[in-house]
Amino acid sequence: MHPMTRWLDDDEQRTWRNFVAATQLLYAALDRQLQRDSAMPHTYYVILVGLSEAPERRMRMSELATWAQSSQSRLSHAVARLEERGWVRRERCPEDGRGNFAVLTDEGFAALAAAAPGHVEEVRRSLFDVLDPEQIRALDDICATVRSRLER
Amino acid sequence: MHPMTRWLDDDEQRTWRNFVAATQLLYAALDRQLQRDSAMPHTYYVILVGLSEAPERRMRMSELATWAQSSQSRLSHAVARLEERGWVRRERCPEDGRGNFAVLTDEGFAALAAAAPGHVEEVRRSLFDVLDPEQIRALDDICATVRSRLER
Repeated sequence: MHPMTRWLDDDEQRTWRNFVAATQLLYAALDRQLQRDSAMPHTYYVILVGLSEAPERRMRMSELATWAQSSQSRLSHAVARLEERGWVRRERCPEDGRGNFAVLTDEGFAALAAAAPGHVEEVRRSLFDVLDPEQIRALDDICATVRSRLER
Repeated sequence: MHPMTRWLDDDEQRTWRNFVAATQLLYAALDRQLQRDSAMPHTYYVILVGLSEAPERRMRMSELATWAQSSQSRLSHAVARLEERGWVRRERCPEDGRGNFAVLTDEGFAALAAAAPGHVEEVRRSLFDVLDPEQIRALDDICATVRSRLER
């Protein structure tokens, strides 16, 4: 099946394990802070941010799934939970009658605004504050490269 | 609550969004490959690797949770699924009678060995192949720094 597997050498193995550990610890820290202070996981926060920046604070569900890098089914589940809280409302498209839209309510916008300062503080504490300016520039470059490769 | 929020400036905001997008796309690619070719998510793969490298291929559940950076409850759930497949077996500690151990079975080891080449190929394709040697060194350095900050 893979007769010529290009196994990771020791340096690559160390880099890969550092990457997995760092990213998982970072997302765990973000979730802990958001759950503790704002009763939401990071995935909900990302959905609210996407809607808050969209025209009229509304997005087609398929666009929102792309934004949140979520499957349609996981996004539907999350939006249903957000709807129960009164933070998001679903609407049928008025023009063509097809496709659902998600709309951020005023309550949802207020929840996002209340959650943002603590979340940003955690992002700084866990990432930006521990890296020097050169590392931050390198991280941006690396992530932009990986992103453009995987978005194709 | 946060009277002096240190908001992200435009450069930091771009870096953060590239980071979230790149890491989420990467983990989604790993999960897709492992689910498609080996019928397991990346989290299961990480558990099997930890056990495969432990003495006698066994670890205390609490150690395994730390290794997999998982909560005890999520780990218990995953290990129960792996036990159903015959890949992992749980044992009581023979010395002190307390604490559960997870043990990798021969079937589990074989499943890991069969999954490894395709997984490593995906890690190369999605990460190492798209970065130059200097970027890889910088990524290792950045991830080691973030890891040591968050493991404290």
